[in-house]
Amino acid sequence: MSRVITISREFGSGGRELGRRLAEELKIAYYDQEIVSEIARRTALSEQYVRAVEEQQPMFSFPIHIGRTFYPAPNPAWEQHMTVYQEQSRIIREMAEKSDCVIVGRCADYILREKKPLRLFVYADPESKLRRCREKAPAGENLTDRELRQKIRDIDKNRARYYEFLTGKTWSDKLNYDLCINTTDQVIKDLASVIARLF
Amino acid sequence: MSRVITISREFGSGGRELGRRLAEELKIAYYDQEIVSEIARRTALSEQYVRAVEEQQPMFSFPIHIGRTFYPAPNPAWEQHMTVYQEQSRIIREMAEKSDCVIVGRCADYILREKKPLRLFVYADPESKLRRCREKAPAGENLTDRELRQKIRDIDKNRARYYEFLTGKTWSDKLNYDLCINTTDQVIKDLASVIARLF
Repeated sequence: MSRVITISREFGSGGRELGRRLAEELKIAYYDQEIVSEIARRTALSEQYVRAVEEQQPMFSFPIHIGRTFYPAPNPAWEQHMTVYQEQSRIIREMAEKSDCVIVGRCADYILREKKPLRLFVYADPESKLRRCREKAPAGENLTDRELRQKIRDIDKNRARYYEFLTGKTWSDKLNYDLCINTTDQVIKDLASVIARLF
Repeated sequence: MSRVITISREFGSGGRELGRRLAEELKIAYYDQEIVSEIARRTALSEQYVRAVEEQQPMFSFPIHIGRTFYPAPNPAWEQHMTVYQEQSRIIREMAEKSDCVIVGRCADYILREKKPLRLFVYADPESKLRRCREKAPAGENLTDRELRQKIRDIDKNRARYYEFLTGKTWSDKLNYDLCINTTDQVIKDLASVIARLF
């Protein structure tokens, strides 16, 4: 059976980078954007749409014209969301079956619960997350500190809702994870080397 | 500067054992009961009384006749509590200064915050804590599952109050720790070897 590490992370905590570097250190596969691409390929939905669905609770107002343009079902948005979730679960299970890997987000900890993955939760204090978001901000993003703090809170709120919808559990609850890692004032690269030693 | 590991732990999570074994693995000092004994020695209060004060919020009803029998102060219980806290902080700082060590409980994470210790929080799910408490129960303890669950909740509630009183922070908040470790279904001995690799 393959060894799987799942990473749930607060926005701005560096969890994605930690996951990528951990996979590099351990020389195992890393899945993140690949999952979006694969869902898009299999469902013929756009990657942009899949990404939006992934991080939102179902039935939040989406522009449903993105992706397919014709819907035979009475509630097409709901159906499309469900398609994304089902495909996502299937792909995550396939990836975890194929080889050792690190999977970021997407409730992989819950989807793979029978495989007993090592479930990490990565978090940091608000100021540290703000700094990290500033450093990694896309070119042209000119948010004030206040706006950026709000953005971080909103994204985490959506992650929490999405997790709760799919799993019935509280996203930030320690009990859903084996190890919770505080990245405040940490250099992610150094932290990844240290965490890799656990394996 | 010495390397210090502080351990906060839920009752029944095996945090104390993890601390002891971690100190053994790393061949560094381990402080727990030693702190109680040292406070008792320096203050002439009984160990039993010191232990009771340590895990309670101040001014909860104590039998104040334990320990000294004469009080010149208008509020002797409060004074005695404060004496214990002050002595405790002093001893913890001395121990951390002396050599590398593991310190269990007693808000050491907060008392030593300027030394930047590695702050661990050890937790587990309720059923796992119940099982561990059963295994380690003192001879003659005949609590029902319901009573034992209540005892676990009460002890953790006191730890949380004590922490909040001394630090102004929430005991179970991940942000107060560098690493939170879930011991559910884990063998503490094996876990300690794994965690020791982080150092």
